[in-house]
Amino acid sequence: MTEQPNTLGLKDNTVLLHRISDRLAERFSGIFTAETVERYVFESYTALARTAKISTYLPATTEHFANDRLNALAEPKGAFASEVPEVLFVCVQNAGRSQMAAALLKVEAKGRIRVRSAGSLPAAELDPAVVTAMAEKGLDLSRDYPKPLTDDVVRASDIVITMGCGDSCPIYPGKRYEDWDLTDTANQSLDTVRDVRDKIHDRVKALVASLLRNSDLRKGEAPS
Amino acid sequence: MTEQPNTLGLKDNTVLLHRISDRLAERFSGIFTAETVERYVFESYTALARTAKISTYLPATTEHFANDRLNALAEPKGAFASEVPEVLFVCVQNAGRSQMAAALLKVEAKGRIRVRSAGSLPAAELDPAVVTAMAEKGLDLSRDYPKPLTDDVVRASDIVITMGCGDSCPIYPGKRYEDWDLTDTANQSLDTVRDVRDKIHDRVKALVASLLRNSDLRKGEAPS
Repeated sequence: MTEQPNTLGLKDNTVLLHRISDRLAERFSGIFTAETVERYVFESYTALARTAKISTYLPATTEHFANDRLNALAEPKGAFASEVPEVLFVCVQNAGRSQMAAALLKVEAKGRIRVRSAGSLPAAELDPAVVTAMAEKGLDLSRDYPKPLTDDVVRASDIVITMGCGDSCPIYPGKRYEDWDLTDTANQSLDTVRDVRDKIHDRVKALVASLLRNSDLRKGEAPS
Repeated sequence: MTEQPNTLGLKDNTVLLHRISDRLAERFSGIFTAETVERYVFESYTALARTAKISTYLPATTEHFANDRLNALAEPKGAFASEVPEVLFVCVQNAGRSQMAAALLKVEAKGRIRVRSAGSLPAAELDPAVVTAMAEKGLDLSRDYPKPLTDDVVRASDIVITMGCGDSCPIYPGKRYEDWDLTDTANQSLDTVRDVRDKIHDRVKALVASLLRNSDLRKGEAPS
């Protein structure tokens, strides 16, 4: 077809997305074809664009999200096989609970656990009260963004922890699934968010203890 | 890791999804690798599971959705190149306006236009008032389902028509973009839905006339 004007006045990001695809194709060369990487970049962009409010950062966020997904996808291929347990937190909006849990687990695990988070219906941005409550603990979530739940990250995980969205998560054999019953932080006061944050922190500490204990135990086992 | 119980009591659909992947891999053999097809099936399942309320039909819906997406993806490869103009309708929930527009365009175009629809934040199911209003016109939407907007269907389209969700749609050069300003049918009375349906029908008829006129004109042009 002949070239048509874009009557909505929206931004064509295809040049930027191709540049991102080239960079990631180089990083994942020998693992994924350039075509697969480009598919991931463009699908990640579309998935984020669906719910993002501010489109200025979309290309940068897309590169980050696509890179994470390709890393997750590479793991079952043994390309970036992870030596440490992998945990995925899923809540509805990936704007509060699952973001706090992921940030707190990263700190508590000190590199001994790989952590991801996602949402079944991702919000446009993180809840500002959540960013504030985490800043009080010295954790900067200002550059994090809500991500839709994708199959690649579920598959790469050993433990999937849902928070009020259990049946929107695909179930795979051989994984551990948990549901943490926590107040949704959407539209809550800072005090309520702080309370949820502290409850999550307690659960995260218990999780780290249990995972690293299991992990030490497994080291003593014969390989299966 | 060793097998863990699925403590949420949810259904593991992986066996069914592998069977679907095998069927589609056969259908698309020579066009896509079995690995690409499987990725599409599992990602389509996860994307639908995020917003579906009833999980009983999820595998069947997944097969339909993944098949549609793979068809869209195959077109730029020239595998299933379409001779007819392709139109994509996008609204927020893909539960009302875009579904009605797609159904009406299919009828009016009589096979001379290829039609798809999607939503930026897909609802769990079609709006019952929309199904009723369309049944009054002899059109059965009872087996349709809300689908998330994906890059493959945008890319396969010649014309993208948004309805109140313009900036959640990726913009590509060379495509025609339109925004139709229509009342959102979510939570509206049957009378309002009928009114929106009839407005859409008028616009759809005008679109068919314009597309098929252009299409006839193009036949007279020298190939560019």
